Amino acid sequence: MANSVSGDSVVDRVVRVISAFPEGVSSLQLSELAERAGLPLSTCHRLVRQLAAYGLLDADGGGTVRLGLRLWELVNRNSPTLALRQAAMPFMEDIQEVLQQNVNLAVLDGWEALFVERLSRRGSVANRARVAGRMPVHISSAGLALMAHQGKALQAEYLEQFSDPTDRLTADALRALLSDTARQGFAQLKGVVDPDTWGIAVPVLDRQQRAVAALGVVVPLHELQLQALVPAMQTAARGIGRRLPDSRARS
Amino acid sequence: MANSVSGDSVVDRVVRVISAFPEGVSSLQLSELAERAGLPLSTCHRLVRQLAAYGLLDADGGGTVRLGLRLWELVNRNSPTLALRQAAMPFMEDIQEVLQQNVNLAVLDGWEALFVERLSRRGSVANRARVAGRMPVHISSAGLALMAHQGKALQAEYLEQFSDPTDRLTADALRALLSDTARQGFAQLKGVVDPDTWGIAVPVLDRQQRAVAALGVVVPLHELQLQALVPAMQTAARGIGRRLPDSRARS
Repeated sequence: MANSVSGDSVVDRVVRVISAFPEGVSSLQLSELAERAGLPLSTCHRLVRQLAAYGLLDADGGGTVRLGLRLWELVNRNSPTLALRQAAMPFMEDIQEVLQQNVNLAVLDGWEALFVERLSRRGSVANRARVAGRMPVHISSAGLALMAHQGKALQAEYLEQFSDPTDRLTADALRALLSDTARQGFAQLKGVVDPDTWGIAVPVLDRQQRAVAALGVVVPLHELQLQALVPAMQTAARGIGRRLPDSRARS
Repeated sequence: MANSVSGDSVVDRVVRVISAFPEGVSSLQLSELAERAGLPLSTCHRLVRQLAAYGLLDADGGGTVRLGLRLWELVNRNSPTLALRQAAMPFMEDIQEVLQQNVNLAVLDGWEALFVERLSRRGSVANRARVAGRMPVHISSAGLALMAHQGKALQAEYLEQFSDPTDRLTADALRALLSDTARQGFAQLKGVVDPDTWGIAVPVLDRQQRAVAALGVVVPLHELQLQALVPAMQTAARGIGRRLPDSRARS
């Protein structure tokens, strides 16, 4: 394997090296990187040197390896979520200005909500929705808002495989929750992640009425005024949907 | 070349494919991607399929290829600029709240300022500093603030190779500009990019007094109150510098 010259395994190794950094860890020692990537040290060293020559990784003299500034630049200047985030940002700023709270934007990826943008304020309540963070559909308001507005086939597939590791939620209860969410046009979750907060999310719909994103806020329990909040968020979500250049359904 | 099985050329091809998307373009047709990457169509097709299997690219049935959501996630959850951006964001929000204008954060990469974060407001003046955008050092206040606080050797190397394509700025004038910037502790550029705005930037210094970043604002000409603005920005920059976990010099 170490000396394999087949194209397949080189692509595989490149992917393993780039994927080896655990969440939130921006640098690794070469030896740890090799171990996490499942590669012999010498193979890893050679690959790091090659990728560093192109700026996809940064390696310093002391054996510390990071994802490269050039890779960050390439991905962010042509981000697959760029159009969505550009469309959403002014509306997210409006919502944030009115509420003075964290606002986030998520897309559905597999059975998880992937948070692609976030505005936070000092003094706002804790919000676990980091940028590039994930949360399972059933414990995030964004996930519920996204899944409640997908095609029947995808929803069925999701419910089919669903099981709650804590056994608190059955597939039937989740089906009812998604159905309520779809009827109401927004999702709300009270204190699942943080007991002192509500998560509220509304779908950003495309022309086929499928959710391409979810706009969410996390607000303190005592400040919650659902009747004022939800219409403001739904208006913002419509604004975002109208500004999307290509509203493809995700299912 | 198309059928080469050496590791070197596979890494090279992976890099060429990932780098082939022009700035701001998030999707390409397979044929255009192959042309831009300088690869035979069949080679490109095979590589896209391999990279898509790992989520580094997304390819749909119609031959449209995008950078993958998984790649975006990997790079952004472990961004080389994550610690800097996390340290800077609360201070950027403070500055934005006070000024109600665009605020940006840049690092030096080669002879350019690379903008790694930006807060913008509707109604604020035009600001060309996009996230993951670049500007040459000599025509951006962020670039000047960064270069003015680098080591003598790096500055000399920069000035040695400098030539202004428009012939408006000599290396001697640029040397004086950098020297003024270092003495004042901030950079200002009046209407170079946009004639109705000022760019103001202050360095974020590490313990060796080298600039690891620049904090910048773009404000309308008529609203400029330098005496109030610069101390506020310098205070914010000091706050950012203090919060950096590892203040390594960049030169």
